[in-house]
This record gives sequence, C-alpha cells and structure tokens, in this order.
Amino acid sequence: MNFIQHLKNIQQKQNSLLCVGLDTDIAKIPAQLRKAKNPQLAFNRIVIEQTCEFVCAYKLNLAFYEEAGLKGLEAIEETLKLIPRNVITIADGKRGDIGNTAQKQASTLLSKMNFDAVTINPYMGYDAVEPFIQNPIKGVFLLCLTSNPGSKDFQYLKISRKPFYQHVALKAKQWNKYFNIGVVVGATHISELKNLRFLLKDMPFLIPGVGEQKGDLENTVKYGCSKNGDLAVINISRSIIFVSENKTFYKDIRRAAVNYYSKINLYRSKYF
Amino acid sequence: MNFIQHLKNIQQKQNSLLCVGLDTDIAKIPAQLRKAKNPQLAFNRIVIEQTCEFVCAYKLNLAFYEEAGLKGLEAIEETLKLIPRNVITIADGKRGDIGNTAQKQASTLLSKMNFDAVTINPYMGYDAVEPFIQNPIKGVFLLCLTSNPGSKDFQYLKISRKPFYQHVALKAKQWNKYFNIGVVVGATHISELKNLRFLLKDMPFLIPGVGEQKGDLENTVKYGCSKNGDLAVINISRSIIFVSENKTFYKDIRRAAVNYYSKINLYRSKYF
Repeated sequence: MNFIQHLKNIQQKQNSLLCVGLDTDIAKIPAQLRKAKNPQLAFNRIVIEQTCEFVCAYKLNLAFYEEAGLKGLEAIEETLKLIPRNVITIADGKRGDIGNTAQKQASTLLSKMNFDAVTINPYMGYDAVEPFIQNPIKGVFLLCLTSNPGSKDFQYLKISRKPFYQHVALKAKQWNKYFNIGVVVGATHISELKNLRFLLKDMPFLIPGVGEQKGDLENTVKYGCSKNGDLAVINISRSIIFVSENKTFYKDIRRAAVNYYSKINLYRSKYF
Repeated sequence: MNFIQHLKNIQQKQNSLLCVGLDTDIAKIPAQLRKAKNPQLAFNRIVIEQTCEFVCAYKLNLAFYEEAGLKGLEAIEETLKLIPRNVITIADGKRGDIGNTAQKQASTLLSKMNFDAVTINPYMGYDAVEPFIQNPIKGVFLLCLTSNPGSKDFQYLKISRKPFYQHVALKAKQWNKYFNIGVVVGATHISELKNLRFLLKDMPFLIPGVGEQKGDLENTVKYGCSKNGDLAVINISRSIIFVSENKTFYKDIRRAAVNYYSKINLYRSKYF
C-alpha cells in the first residue's frame, strides 16, 4: 500500500475531503480550558471529539506547539494518540535541509512521532525530500504554490515561460516513484490550482487558504479534486477551531465542521 | 545597534570568523557521555568549553535536538545558557511559513529561547521573513545557495538570465532595511560565492560546506568576506565536534577548532 492509495481509501470511507488544522494557538484557547494541565491537549481533545466523523485528516501546525516548549511536545504526542487510525495525520512543519539533517527530521516526524505525512519546503532540492519518501505508506506534501501574499515574491517568477511553482510541480511528479508525494496549493489561487490539477492528475493536493484566508470553496472543490472527486485535502484551521468564544464553543466547532463537510460534499456531487 | 554591526564587533573582539555547528547527533556522542542525564547537553558543554575562545558563533541545528524530544528541548535551552554572551547563537531550523505561523516561530526562537539569529527558507516570500526582522539586533540568514547536491534542482534555474539564487540575494538586499539580514551560501560553490559577495557587499554570509562537505577554506575566506575581511561566518560542524572517537576527544575538538581558527586567520591576513 502506498500513501496515495491509502489517502483515497480514507477519503472514501470517511466520505470527506476535509482536513481540520490543529493550529492550537494558546492565546486563543477558551478560558475554561486554560487551567487544564495541558491546555493545548485539552482543547485538541474536544476538537477531535467534535469533528473526527467529518474529516479525512488532521494537520498539526508544529510552530504552535513549539511555542509551548515541553508541554507543546507532550501535546503533539498525546494528540496523535487521540486521533482515530482511520484519519490521516499531517505534521505541518515545512521542513527541508541537507541529507543528514533531513534524515533526522524524517525519523522524528514519521517514525518516532508516527505522523502519516509531512509538509516539506522544496527549495533545497531532492536530498531534502528523499529521506521522507522512503516508506511508501508515509506521505510528503511539497510546498508548491502557497496561500500567502509572499507567494508572489518567488513562486511566480518565470523560468522558460513557466512560473517557478510549476517547475516544483513537475519535479514533484518526477520524484513520485513510490506514489507518496503530493503538493501544497493555496485556495487563494484558483486558476493556478486548475492548471496544477491538469499537470498532476493523480497526486494529492493539500489545500490551505479556505476560511480565514478567503479562498473560494466551490472552485477549490471543482478544480482541486482529481477526476474521481478525491485527492484534494481541504484544510480549514481558524474558521473551525476558533469559530466561537461562547461557553458552548464545542458545539460551534462541530457545527462549523459539519458545515464545511456538507458544503464540500455538495460541490463534489455537483461536479463529480 | 543592529545585527550586522553587532556581528562585526563580535568578529573583531573574538578575532574569529569561525562558527562551530552544534549538530549534536546522539548516535555519535562519545561513549563516556552517553550515561549523562542529558548526553547532548553534556557533550555541548565540553565543545563550548574547548572552543569558545576561537569562535564568533555557535549554530544549533534544531533537527538534532528535535530528535531527542523533551530532552532535546532541554538541551537547547541549557546549551544557550552556557554560551558566552560575546558569541552569536544561531538557530538553524530553516523555518518559513505564512504570517501568523512565522510570528509564532519568531517569538519561540528569538524571544523565548533568545537566539541571536535564525536561518529562514525564502520560498514563501516576505511575510515568512518579516516577523523575524522586527527587532534589529536579531539576525536572519536567508537560504540563498545551499551546499548540498539538491541545490542544483531549483536554485540554478535561470530567470531573466539570472539564476534563481541571485533573485533571492537581491530580495534579501531589498528587505535589509533594519540591517539585520544575511544569506546562507555553501562553500561548495566558490565562483557563485564570489559573485554573491559582489552583489551583497555589506551583508553577513553564513557559509556551511567546509569540512565534511569538502568546500575550499582558502577561497571561502578570500571570496566570502566583505572588503574588511569580516562578515563571513564560516560554519564547521562534524569536522570539529565529531573529529575523534578517542577518550581524550575533547583535546581533539580543541585542536580541530584551533586549526580552523588559525587557518582562517592566516587566509584573512593574506587577502585583507
């Protein structure tokens, strides 16, 4: 079994393309959880309980845990134990380094912590990616076209008439010999998303930028999915986990997740 | 005071351009330290004692500590306390993410852990860099031309007749409004190093790739320094810290550091 097939199976069984981003910012955790022994873990437990029926993946943004030091590291490890095995876990750390360092990163994230997948920055080239793809069941999402304003600084520079991010996409395709590589494409760039799906027909797309960053959900589904209406992993972070400051915030989290889950499936049934 | 002036002062007072890379691989720590409560910290203590007279900086490769989990985090924090204040500390994590995440990374590495400088991956553009440069005394080294074989995959692609890494260099120059940005340039690319120093006359260069990766030290000094013979931060990791497996490894570490320190200063006196 390889990661791409594994992801397809999970998306089918869960009937979901939704990924909830556990960007668990300590400053935004509801007041009643701040006195918990480990507030990030206590919050994640509630998010997972309320949303795990409706997702294909959870993405942990490592920076938000690194900020919390030892407790953050504990929160990552314990959160991973709470996530059901029929859901993909993604370590969003955007790592990337020379071979001997990348080996350490791969061993930490994919073996020791046992994440199913990671995000990797492609700038340093193949030896920064290689250690992460050795186990075919583990997945790698290469940053390709990111959702932020700074994506314009380098990713659109033209090389032989093609923007730089398309060169990254083509390398991702070339390197995908174990069928476990995908790309990160921001939902803030719909026409580029469409072109990238044309280039990479059967590779997973991790798509941030819907929600707080205002990417268009309908077109994200229409152009981000493969021809079978899958392989898009649509990440929503703040607009689900920090949707409400009410005492019954957990209900609002569930409602927000169900809302995105349902809309995504509505658009899937419309276009696929 | 800005980071660039601060680095110049330190290089002058220490009379050194040498940076020792604390890539403290647990598997390579000498046997007699492996039973210490925190072997990475015990090892770093010895390296720092033996080398701190001869360096301008220490660079901690975060991946090697992340591998050790909670103990690794403790090793980072305690190691930083052991490093004299007249030496720069660099967090080599090659981070880079969208604005709200980059803010967390900057706060963790530069405020909470109190590193003096960080390495940043430029692929995501200015908003991935901005939170790290807000405090002028803190420095940022942007990956420009890395020392590894994979540097050929993207960094040399030609855009308007200039290789991609030169576009990164020019953005680094443009963004350097607080005088605290430098670049990472591998010593494995000497002619490119020469060209980059011509482009970026007064910016710091963090230069890995001498030592284990076989970069040429004499030409690294000749072409990596600014016209005053400074602002090159020449990093050596494995060839100093893991130079020996003898029981008296600490003497060999000192000898290796003195050797690089002396050679660098010999070449400085030859060319500047």
